[in-house]
Amino acid sequence: MPQLRKDPVLGRWVIISTERGKRPTDFAHDHEPSRGGVCPFDEGNEDKTPKEVHAYRAAGTPKDGPGWQVRVVPNKFPALAIEGELDRAGEGMYDKMNGIGAHEVIIETPRHDATFEGLPVEHVALVIKAAQDRMLDLQGDTRFRYIQFFRNKGSAAGASLEHPHSQLIALPILPKRLAEELSGSQKYFGYKERCVFCDIVAQETWTRTRIVSENDQFISIVPFAARFPFEAWILPRKHLPSFEYMDDALRLAYAGILKETLTRITLALDDPPYNLIVHTSPCGERDLRYYHWHTEIMPTLTKVAGFEWGSGFYINPTPPEDAARYLREVDLSKGNGA
Amino acid sequence: MPQLRKDPVLGRWVIISTERGKRPTDFAHDHEPSRGGVCPFDEGNEDKTPKEVHAYRAAGTPKDGPGWQVRVVPNKFPALAIEGELDRAGEGMYDKMNGIGAHEVIIETPRHDATFEGLPVEHVALVIKAAQDRMLDLQGDTRFRYIQFFRNKGSAAGASLEHPHSQLIALPILPKRLAEELSGSQKYFGYKERCVFCDIVAQETWTRTRIVSENDQFISIVPFAARFPFEAWILPRKHLPSFEYMDDALRLAYAGILKETLTRITLALDDPPYNLIVHTSPCGERDLRYYHWHTEIMPTLTKVAGFEWGSGFYINPTPPEDAARYLREVDLSKGNGA
Repeated sequence: MPQLRKDPVLGRWVIISTERGKRPTDFAHDHEPSRGGVCPFDEGNEDKTPKEVHAYRAAGTPKDGPGWQVRVVPNKFPALAIEGELDRAGEGMYDKMNGIGAHEVIIETPRHDATFEGLPVEHVALVIKAAQDRMLDLQGDTRFRYIQFFRNKGSAAGASLEHPHSQLIALPILPKRLAEELSGSQKYFGYKERCVFCDIVAQETWTRTRIVSENDQFISIVPFAARFPFEAWILPRKHLPSFEYMDDALRLAYAGILKETLTRITLALDDPPYNLIVHTSPCGERDLRYYHWHTEIMPTLTKVAGFEWGSGFYINPTPPEDAARYLREVDLSKGNGA
Repeated sequence: MPQLRKDPVLGRWVIISTERGKRPTDFAHDHEPSRGGVCPFDEGNEDKTPKEVHAYRAAGTPKDGPGWQVRVVPNKFPALAIEGELDRAGEGMYDKMNGIGAHEVIIETPRHDATFEGLPVEHVALVIKAAQDRMLDLQGDTRFRYIQFFRNKGSAAGASLEHPHSQLIALPILPKRLAEELSGSQKYFGYKERCVFCDIVAQETWTRTRIVSENDQFISIVPFAARFPFEAWILPRKHLPSFEYMDDALRLAYAGILKETLTRITLALDDPPYNLIVHTSPCGERDLRYYHWHTEIMPTLTKVAGFEWGSGFYINPTPPEDAARYLREVDLSKGNGA
């Protein structure tokens, strides 16, 4: 059973994988995502993953067989265990609990060599719908406080398999970063009586210098205080607290701007590794007036070093206005299917 | 002039390098630290660095010439500008100020191929003394709120030059991470009337399962809620708020445990890249009862991925007790000079 432990100074929780403890020698060859060999995410290899918990598949095709477009399975090496109780306990001055949670993989396409941003927009929307479906289902489990949907691309961004996939982790506590976003946006609301993200959308739409792309429902920007070069955020124009309650029309608009933003990043930066994270409201909070769901995309271009780790203070070598201009100027006709 | 910008939701400041804006193509070949060629940190190449601000050198040798043991120079590519005023200003809803600060490099030895942990303990202590001297001097500048001393080793940990060196950055604001440590330890003090770090030292000395190394004045441990595998912290046994006020005897004891801890990490993990960060009190606060300076060392063994960036929630694949045991069991007789 993994363990959750709390830092007594910062209040930050970490997941300690107590069972499969990695030894010093296990880190020596932790390099590229495995290439070649059998990919467990390919169509026809459904028996090489845990049993599917959700799929969009052709009518009449059986579970855990071929014929699917998007398939969701539990992670074979989950960071958290789905069975059990939290059992909060002390250890002297320290706090710990069992590492209970869900860890699922969304296999985004049966095609091993596809890219997420190269999929047709309707297929991107199907991946998003699969994530929404699973999040709504997992929210029924009262042990969970937050569900995070994210996507790592490339070895430098932490991906261990090449086949296009994203992940969901359901957590029994509210993660520190979300708690900070909620408290920061609540403080702003208390002062202004407006949602801070709605104000960001308004100012960026007005000044236009940091816009990457836009449609009727969403804008994509390089944020004013971006931590990383070419970091991009996608925000719904209208106030909406939760990703998982997007309707069909909004989902299609989101799939469109997501595909376009990722294609611009891929073309401008020669297919960089990246992390994509959806920030949404905690479980059971679907009406927050001060919080607004959004997506953060961070290409892995610089190394995070001692200064950043020690201070939480980032140095960004590309001004956001420049980054946005480079991304806007990308010639999309060179992309695959964009 | 670099710019400091504040995230309107999280209150986190970032440094935007507005002048040397990196373009998309500048990231393509950002790989290994430059090898070969002329090293500006080698003895005899003193004219290839900005003029020295401090040095320990043989009696009678001239400034900016050979004959030094430790030499401190301004960073040739500083993250912050030393001249100017902060000029705090708004930009619509956003906050910004000029990127004022100091960024210095401590060249730890004239020998290009030396390693920091392989230096004699008296030489390690001299590097520490140089950092203390510079921090005390920079604290005279009332524009600065915090001074961070850190060391990046290896390309994966963000080092751009191979020659052993560490860095100092003086900041005009208290970085988020330090503000969080101060507020967390103040909250603990309010409840317990004891320093949380003193309590950590007491519990770790009592349980012994996470100790890496110890001497009369310091302990080195793998912390209970370590974010990263083989993360190690060094803490003074007695309450001491500030690194920069360590006296000669304490400094030598610190140099000893620092050298030993780094040697154990180097031998156990086959010379891994790492970040080392000294956490100390803000400028002008030398008597805090609730804060206790310490050193955090983080080997770069895993990739920080979407989940961690999005949540601030880390997954550590090596239980701290196992990591501490591996580090304790290292045969130091195999090290160079340890």
